[in-house]
Amino acid sequence: MEILDAGVIAHVGVSTPDGPLVLPMAYGRDGELLYLHGAIANHLLGSGEEQEICATVTHLDGLVMARSPFHNSMNYRSVVVRGRGRRIRDYRRKIEALRLITDHVVPHWDDVRPPSRSELRKTLVLELPLTEASAKVRAGDPIDDPEDIEGPWWAGTVPITSRFGRPTPSSDLNHGTTVPAPVVGLTGSTLDQRPRRQRG
Amino acid sequence: MEILDAGVIAHVGVSTPDGPLVLPMAYGRDGELLYLHGAIANHLLGSGEEQEICATVTHLDGLVMARSPFHNSMNYRSVVVRGRGRRIRDYRRKIEALRLITDHVVPHWDDVRPPSRSELRKTLVLELPLTEASAKVRAGDPIDDPEDIEGPWWAGTVPITSRFGRPTPSSDLNHGTTVPAPVVGLTGSTLDQRPRRQRG
Repeated sequence: MEILDAGVIAHVGVSTPDGPLVLPMAYGRDGELLYLHGAIANHLLGSGEEQEICATVTHLDGLVMARSPFHNSMNYRSVVVRGRGRRIRDYRRKIEALRLITDHVVPHWDDVRPPSRSELRKTLVLELPLTEASAKVRAGDPIDDPEDIEGPWWAGTVPITSRFGRPTPSSDLNHGTTVPAPVVGLTGSTLDQRPRRQRG
Repeated sequence: MEILDAGVIAHVGVSTPDGPLVLPMAYGRDGELLYLHGAIANHLLGSGEEQEICATVTHLDGLVMARSPFHNSMNYRSVVVRGRGRRIRDYRRKIEALRLITDHVVPHWDDVRPPSRSELRKTLVLELPLTEASAKVRAGDPIDDPEDIEGPWWAGTVPITSRFGRPTPSSDLNHGTTVPAPVVGLTGSTLDQRPRRQRG
């Protein structure tokens, strides 16, 4: 759950008549459900109310550089969720799912204009049960063959960190509008450490 | 091509009897071919020499926070490559593909122990033609409804930057082994700006 909660986008795959398709999507989580929202929703549900999907969230934490390229790797944390995505039709559940997706990135639902009925109609939101989720974590040094350890080659790791910069107001922003506190709080934080709502 | 060359991992999707599967993989590029290598290769080619796959590379450049969550978005650059992944069997082509994958992250092939025949046999490498590749870029401010522009809500973007940290030697590293220059050059650079080999 921590890996999912720290992520910002998921790569979501579906099977189509033209082969598999993988697209980046925003998401949110509540208990044992993942909520998905984005361009792929149209591809997903052109054909019905449900579809088999795979949502993968990956944090790339660093390069793992071994003495032999055969042992090169990455340090990462990932979660793979597989299951049937179901379209949410109920008005109240849809608005709640949108709140979760919005607040997933940074909690600011209380600082936006609530969606209108017509916006909600146009928005496709999916729920995906987390029953088939598997996490994988790789951390630490490369693991080389014992006979290579004393060789002349360098081996080690190079960390990768993703950080938020300073919020930039929209060029059409009303003068006097203040930046919501949770958005201010993003500046300089890593994606993992960003301000988040407590949840179950 | 720039988007592909700047990326470090691809999210690769295949269709399986248990539904779609999306996993992160290392990759390289040469001209009009993408080379893939990683855990998914086994899933991919358990069943044959070729398989329909989709490889998606996404750079998340920032959050796009609109006045209405309906217009929330992300700034990103992505490339979606769809096609038939083919297993590379030829010894020389395989070693060349591994060099391209290794050097894709940071050019250091000349600083590692070359792969042995038995390592090469165990390594599954795929090539995927770039004929069906489509790029998508979103940049800049949120686009709100005109009637919301004068409202009291904040709108803007928050940049996200991913950087390499300082290389950390493996705990079992031979004293006196120096860090290869391209690896030293990673420190502090963004993923986009990392040292790269010139290529076609």
